[in-house]
Amino acid sequence: MPLEVRSDRYYKLVTMDRLLPAAIDAEISRVLEESMVRAGVDLRLGQPVRALRKRSDGVAVVTDAGEEVFDEIVMGLGVRPNADLAVSAGVKLGQTGAVETDEFMRTNVEGVFAAGDLVEKQHLILRRKVWIPLAPAANKEGQVAGANAVLPGSLRMRGIVGTAVTKFRQTYVARTGLSEAEARANGFSVESTVIKARTKAGYYPGGVEVTVKIVAQSGSGRVLGVQVIGDDPVVAGYVDVAAAAITAGFTVEDLFFTDIGYMPATAPVWHPLIVAARTLSGGRF
Amino acid sequence: MPLEVRSDRYYKLVTMDRLLPAAIDAEISRVLEESMVRAGVDLRLGQPVRALRKRSDGVAVVTDAGEEVFDEIVMGLGVRPNADLAVSAGVKLGQTGAVETDEFMRTNVEGVFAAGDLVEKQHLILRRKVWIPLAPAANKEGQVAGANAVLPGSLRMRGIVGTAVTKFRQTYVARTGLSEAEARANGFSVESTVIKARTKAGYYPGGVEVTVKIVAQSGSGRVLGVQVIGDDPVVAGYVDVAAAAITAGFTVEDLFFTDIGYMPATAPVWHPLIVAARTLSGGRF
Repeated sequence: MPLEVRSDRYYKLVTMDRLLPAAIDAEISRVLEESMVRAGVDLRLGQPVRALRKRSDGVAVVTDAGEEVFDEIVMGLGVRPNADLAVSAGVKLGQTGAVETDEFMRTNVEGVFAAGDLVEKQHLILRRKVWIPLAPAANKEGQVAGANAVLPGSLRMRGIVGTAVTKFRQTYVARTGLSEAEARANGFSVESTVIKARTKAGYYPGGVEVTVKIVAQSGSGRVLGVQVIGDDPVVAGYVDVAAAAITAGFTVEDLFFTDIGYMPATAPVWHPLIVAARTLSGGRF
Repeated sequence: MPLEVRSDRYYKLVTMDRLLPAAIDAEISRVLEESMVRAGVDLRLGQPVRALRKRSDGVAVVTDAGEEVFDEIVMGLGVRPNADLAVSAGVKLGQTGAVETDEFMRTNVEGVFAAGDLVEKQHLILRRKVWIPLAPAANKEGQVAGANAVLPGSLRMRGIVGTAVTKFRQTYVARTGLSEAEARANGFSVESTVIKARTKAGYYPGGVEVTVKIVAQSGSGRVLGVQVIGDDPVVAGYVDVAAAAITAGFTVEDLFFTDIGYMPATAPVWHPLIVAARTLSGGRF
């Protein structure tokens, strides 16, 4: 019997017109797309897959533009919490569909703690529960659950600010806080800027270009999010600095004045984050 | 006439028994020393140079252990502010011997601003002026002086937390805040820990070992300083995260719960900074 998967049957098809739209803004997606195209990837964005058909010579992918046959297909369909066991144990789920806990990682069932990708997290900027299943919070939740199982009330889980990192070949993309799209969708009035800078002093060999986007709340100047992309893993570190700054409630001016280190081999004297903060200030600093 | 430099004539000779004692603690110096020795450097620590004598076959370095002849010598004698021009203009120096300014970079002389390595800085942990002449603060001071020259009172310089980075070949060493020695010398009651961790997930190729020291105030748990050394420039980024955390007054527990990113190619799921914070907590988290 031939395999036929009809996309409308199993999942709501979201056809993306750019890469990682839930995580990064369009300016950063574009840099990632350019990196993939340079590497020879034939990117087809905005083309809904209508069906997959197994054929003797491979798998046919059916789109509105026609049918193409491939040897293999890999589908990225997103993730959702697998909460069946928890539900069968009487554990309450939150509005996100993931397990609801308090800050001690206690569920509604006496003696049952929950931790990990199954659990919703407190978002420190949005001040509500979200479901972002990533390992750092998952592991810390395990620590918190264990501590409180042994010594009730001894350790409180904090929230997350949405830090995430990924890569395509040598291109690293990292983000923390809210993207501009997320910030606007959540009612924030924002200003933002996108800058290009280098990872090392201009004259120092081995530096690469990075693109940094910074998003701040209008008026207060509070940093809401930072996204960085470039062909060097150091961009993950830039976003970690921003994660600490956002957790602390830094304004763009606070970030500018943060005593970030400099030496020609590790950063320009005006670090890319500082350049982004300066640029967003519109010449005030 | 033969050159003879007698060290006691020109400067107070400080003979170091370890590397960078003003910046890093002994555990970190030791890792740097091991890196230098591995690279073939014949390190002679704790041997005061008594004199240098020019000879037909080179320069003789005289120590208590005898005399050795070298083709070239390079002396690292430290730095001091060159304030002659400022002094001749009637500009007041601070207790550090560098130019004293207010937070608008104004000197005591009406209309004269000062910025750069010549100027003393406010240390945000020590809450007093220090003279640490490094480029990031110097450049920001220029920005602040310029802003206030045009629009008086428009921008205030913040202080520093003592972030610095250097390297020997592939070994990067970075620090921020106070070393344990500095913290103790300044009356802080401290606890500290030194951990070894890796820059990438254990199974991911290309990771290297890093050594992280974290120093915190006893009782409050406030992070006072972080030092990192390892054969990867990412260690500079770790210290930048710590600089933001220290500026914000984070405790070790705050640092542990900071939403630092993870992916196998950029960090272990327990980031080295988080491991250091955990270890210092003594098992509480």
